Amino acid sequence: MSFRYEVRLSGEGGQGLVLAGKVLAEAAAIYDDKNATQSQSYGPEARGGASRSEVIISDEDIDYPKAVNIDLLLALTQESVNKYHSDLKDDGILLVDSDACSEIPEGKFKVYGVPIIQIAREKVGKVLVANIVALGVITEVAKVVTREAVEAAILARVPKGTEELNLSAFKAGVEAAQELGS
Amino acid sequence: MSFRYEVRLSGEGGQGLVLAGKVLAEAAAIYDDKNATQSQSYGPEARGGASRSEVIISDEDIDYPKAVNIDLLLALTQESVNKYHSDLKDDGILLVDSDACSEIPEGKFKVYGVPIIQIAREKVGKVLVANIVALGVITEVAKVVTREAVEAAILARVPKGTEELNLSAFKAGVEAAQELGS
Repeated sequence: MSFRYEVRLSGEGGQGLVLAGKVLAEAAAIYDDKNATQSQSYGPEARGGASRSEVIISDEDIDYPKAVNIDLLLALTQESVNKYHSDLKDDGILLVDSDACSEIPEGKFKVYGVPIIQIAREKVGKVLVANIVALGVITEVAKVVTREAVEAAILARVPKGTEELNLSAFKAGVEAAQELGS
Repeated sequence: MSFRYEVRLSGEGGQGLVLAGKVLAEAAAIYDDKNATQSQSYGPEARGGASRSEVIISDEDIDYPKAVNIDLLLALTQESVNKYHSDLKDDGILLVDSDACSEIPEGKFKVYGVPIIQIAREKVGKVLVANIVALGVITEVAKVVTREAVEAAILARVPKGTEELNLSAFKAGVEAAQELGS
């Protein structure tokens, strides 16, 4: 049976969501041997400062590279929760920054709240790596790429000299997700 | 009447085609007030070193963000000419690096050959900016974004300290395209 997993990363411009999407897509395709697309839309909403990046992972060719039935939605702002939660599929996952998003709409999706930005700022020491903390959480809850693949993709993608910072951000995200389960 | 323009940038990994796609999409959406999507696929072909980036520009929402009927195909390698020319629409444009691509297939598309990589190396002084030279050619032959918009998007996107280099690469591309017409 064929397999397709749709991820939308949403928040504000400057939060590194396009880079995070690229890392996730490369992890899946280059290191985990699946197919993946990564895309972003620019339009009126982008001009307003919102940002959105999509990744689709499949074991087959991806004919329709737009997310329409989302398995996992990351929302780093309340605005993106409000705007996109209705695109989640019934058993999908809504992963929110628990400080930035206080109003969680009802739906058939699962909700995970993690203080992603706070973890980046306080545990890792740089708010800029919130995108990579989020990737750690996503890797752990989505179980669609391996941790090793994402780590390899991070190392290949982040600026020289920031590898350790980014790997510790990733680890902090994985650990935060593990605490969700307990 | 609604308008949709599909661009595929193809070549090898490391040629900066994803960045070029992003600049083109941002030029169209942020500076020229259109809608745009930019996407890349990762799969067996990416693992082989090939690279492909797609941009779709429209005056409406873009529901189907995959290029299926290409208006302009940039090919920096013979392999990408061979692989993608059949996706061009009848009056589309095949823009090839004229040194790298010697075998041009027959078709109803127009063919423009420009020594893009050589211009980057010899006129601009850095082979790395071949992607921006290509953007200059594309801007001039496609006429779908303004020169000013692409220049603004280049300035917003390229690493600090390389602005002038990239603008001169863009200009060299525009000039090479103007010579095609004469």
